[in-house]
Amino acid sequence: MMKQARTLLSRSLCDQSNSLFASSTLRGFATWTDSSPTTGRDAAKPSGRVFAPYAIFKGKAALSVEPCLPTFTKIEPGNLRIDRRGSVMMTFMPSVGERKYDWGKKQLFALSATEVGSLISMGSSDSSEFFHDPSMKSSNAGQVRKSLSIKPLADGSGYFFSLTVNNSLLNTNDRIVVPVTKAEFAVMKTAFSFALPHILGWGRLTSQVGTAAQGITLHPKTDPMQLELEWVK
Amino acid sequence: MMKQARTLLSRSLCDQSNSLFASSTLRGFATWTDSSPTTGRDAAKPSGRVFAPYAIFKGKAALSVEPCLPTFTKIEPGNLRIDRRGSVMMTFMPSVGERKYDWGKKQLFALSATEVGSLISMGSSDSSEFFHDPSMKSSNAGQVRKSLSIKPLADGSGYFFSLTVNNSLLNTNDRIVVPVTKAEFAVMKTAFSFALPHILGWGRLTSQVGTAAQGITLHPKTDPMQLELEWVK
Amino acid sequence: MMKQARTLLSRSLCDQSNSLFASSTLRGFATWTDSSPTTGRDAAKPSGRVFAPYAIFKGKAALSVEPCLPTFTKIEPGNLRIDRRGSVMMTFMPSVGERKYDWGKKQLFALSATEVGSLISMGSSDSSEFFHDPSMKSSNAGQVRKSLSIKPLADGSGYFFSLTVNNSLLNTNDRIVVPVTKAEFAVMKTAFSFALPHILGWGRLTSQVGTAAQGITLHPKTDPMQLELEWVK
Amino acid sequence: MMKQARTLLSRSLCDQSNSLFASSTLRGFATWTDSSPTTGRDAAKPSGRVFAPYAIFKGKAALSVEPCLPTFTKIEPGNLRIDRRGSVMMTFMPSVGERKYDWGKKQLFALSATEVGSLISMGSSDSSEFFHDPSMKSSNAGQVRKSLSIKPLADGSGYFFSLTVNNSLLNTNDRIVVPVTKAEFAVMKTAFSFALPHILGWGRLTSQVGTAAQGITLHPKTDPMQLELEWVK
Repeated sequence: MMKQARTLLSRSLCDQSNSLFASSTLRGFATWTDSSPTTGRDAAKPSGRVFAPYAIFKGKAALSVEPCLPTFTKIEPGNLRIDRRGSVMMTFMPSVGERKYDWGKKQLFALSATEVGSLISMGSSDSSEFFHDPSMKSSNAGQVRKSLSIKPLADGSGYFFSLTVNNSLLNTNDRIVVPVTKAEFAVMKTAFSFALPHILGWGRLTSQVGTAAQGITLHPKTDPMQLELEWVK
Repeated sequence: MMKQARTLLSRSLCDQSNSLFASSTLRGFATWTDSSPTTGRDAAKPSGRVFAPYAIFKGKAALSVEPCLPTFTKIEPGNLRIDRRGSVMMTFMPSVGERKYDWGKKQLFALSATEVGSLISMGSSDSSEFFHDPSMKSSNAGQVRKSLSIKPLADGSGYFFSLTVNNSLLNTNDRIVVPVTKAEFAVMKTAFSFALPHILGWGRLTSQVGTAAQGITLHPKTDPMQLELEWVK
Repeated sequence: MMKQARTLLSRSLCDQSNSLFASSTLRGFATWTDSSPTTGRDAAKPSGRVFAPYAIFKGKAALSVEPCLPTFTKIEPGNLRIDRRGSVMMTFMPSVGERKYDWGKKQLFALSATEVGSLISMGSSDSSEFFHDPSMKSSNAGQVRKSLSIKPLADGSGYFFSLTVNNSLLNTNDRIVVPVTKAEFAVMKTAFSFALPHILGWGRLTSQVGTAAQGITLHPKTDPMQLELEWVK
Repeated sequence: MMKQARTLLSRSLCDQSNSLFASSTLRGFATWTDSSPTTGRDAAKPSGRVFAPYAIFKGKAALSVEPCLPTFTKIEPGNLRIDRRGSVMMTFMPSVGERKYDWGKKQLFALSATEVGSLISMGSSDSSEFFHDPSMKSSNAGQVRKSLSIKPLADGSGYFFSLTVNNSLLNTNDRIVVPVTKAEFAVMKTAFSFALPHILGWGRLTSQVGTAAQGITLHPKTDPMQLELEWVK
């Protein structure tokens, strides 16, 4: 039961399966249909979510990015331990007409902290490629492979983001490509740099200070600390 | 009625029509008059606003910049969805004397997230130009055109910010130019980089964690998560 | 009386005249005496201050830097208007022996937001110089002049920070020089970049969101916003 | 007794001796044993800790980094003074098998604010070396020496982090080396830049504003401030 609760809570922070994209119009700019048979299967919907993707709509596809926060486990005596690190979720959707995108055919790619580090340190002529295997370490390893490629445009005006999903179980091979301008890439770099400490869980480390009496002594110090923390074993 | 409320709330975060500029003196440095016939028309004034523009006063004009936060819509069951993205509002005011500026002749230009991304990634010899049409997608499209041009000064000591507003309905053509030093531009870059995640609405994603029990499980985890979020469809 | 209150509140955020330096030892590293006749004159001490300077102790002098937050004025109906912008306060103290500094001979220099912008955008071979006149716009203009010069060291390993205070009233001319390493300068750049939005007052703009119902509508939106904020005059 | 309390509180923010590493598995990726005889000696465990290290697991060793917040002392009348600055704690652990690391043989190195400044300003071909002596200024000075060396990999793909601990009392000489990729280094730079103002204690300076009536006057200002803070002595 606890596991179930944890799963729901985790999902509440970043599950996009019924996100604002699924049934919505973003600022009158774009609409989409949902060809997926799975929509609506979530009976128990958690609350407290915030949907604020940064979305880029292009002719053949759209790309939306959004931070996914880490989950924490309470450990005695009142401490928190990070349970699963956060990520930056990228959602690719093919277009099905002018400014219409098919949510049911979306493909997801969750950038880890280190992959985010790779992206934000890219120079204007650098390329990156990331590979994910959902079945890694299981008997199905290698049957579904995802790769995200980021390559500079020839004229230096931006990058191509290409997501390839090869599924040998379903015998499908999808590829969704979104051109990203330098300005849009600058938004990603700045927003991802902001998000990175939070997906590592360091946002909690710092906000913890403001809310508790932690780290505050009640009287002026009476002698200097000779002991460096580093030497306390 | 709800729409009305929403409109007021939206305005409360960034409407500058009765901002501190309208009737005020900033630190004894500059004053301004208001030649506009519309001042005072807002009967219902929302509360909770914070006025903290970064203003640059030059000989022929002044430029003030300020973040405008996004608005959110509550959706069931207790979630928030971004309704309209924020922006960085730029206000240009012509001077009408030494350190006197005419608030009534101000011109506004709201930089979108992507335009902010473009500005903060500008190198010292780069130029940018942004075009806005308030009547876009209506029958009046093209009748009022605004363009903001940012060009490096010849000696590399900063940039010219030029706002041109061409209104074919009123048959007016305004142009306000403010020279911005490298140091002032550095303030903008740093402040805009700080503001960018907030105008995207990502500030809420991260602050949400500190205030609720979200993302925290009540007991130590009992088994590792095999499932990557990315594979949950 | 209100003016008095405001003055005290302002000072509570950044007055260093009885800061931790005045009577204290920092981590057993350095001590200082106070030759000033004015210590202890503050009868009414405000509370809620936080003293957390970043201090650099060198052979002939010490330099300490600390952000000074802006002050706000409440305006009806429940809004806040920035009253005085913040700054980064730099405190220079000459040494009077090995790791002993004379707090009574300290000299202050408050970097404005734009001067902070200048400092954080300095390349490794750039110089900066800032001039302050406390009596500017009064009949005493020019009688006390302060200048802060930041110059790269010949070997590229850092910068010289030199504060010169020329007081023609007291017929004094003080000069305090502190060499700053590249690593220390990197701390300043990073910490000043963090502080800059807060000294502009933009920290309040963003924190405001988390604490109130502002910007949230109670029902799903019913139609797209055609109006860009920029067009609301 | 107060000293004891202070010590415990300090440790609660960054003592890693019973951190999540000591008895845990991180996301099913790696496990470790503890060969140390000292585990479990802490009878009084403080609460409110958050464990969120960024850990890098490599063939021969693992490296984990985590911010350690500063401690504060309350001083009258309700103010806070930083007592000990924070740091970024680096934990090195040798491997004892495939994806198994020996927590009992860990070595710690606490980067000061200035050392963090040094690391985050490193270019891709720069090196850094830091030396710590826990017994500095005591009669045992020089008997235990730690040095952390960061050197670029020959092919430019990252850095070697090497921690050497020479203990002439125990006659031991440990060396733990972890290769760090460019992407992992970018995560460190971004996360350390985020943490730096907080380990200086500046996070409190800014958060203070949101929680108290500080810096707010109750009525509109009635006259401009002629006095610059800098001139208040």
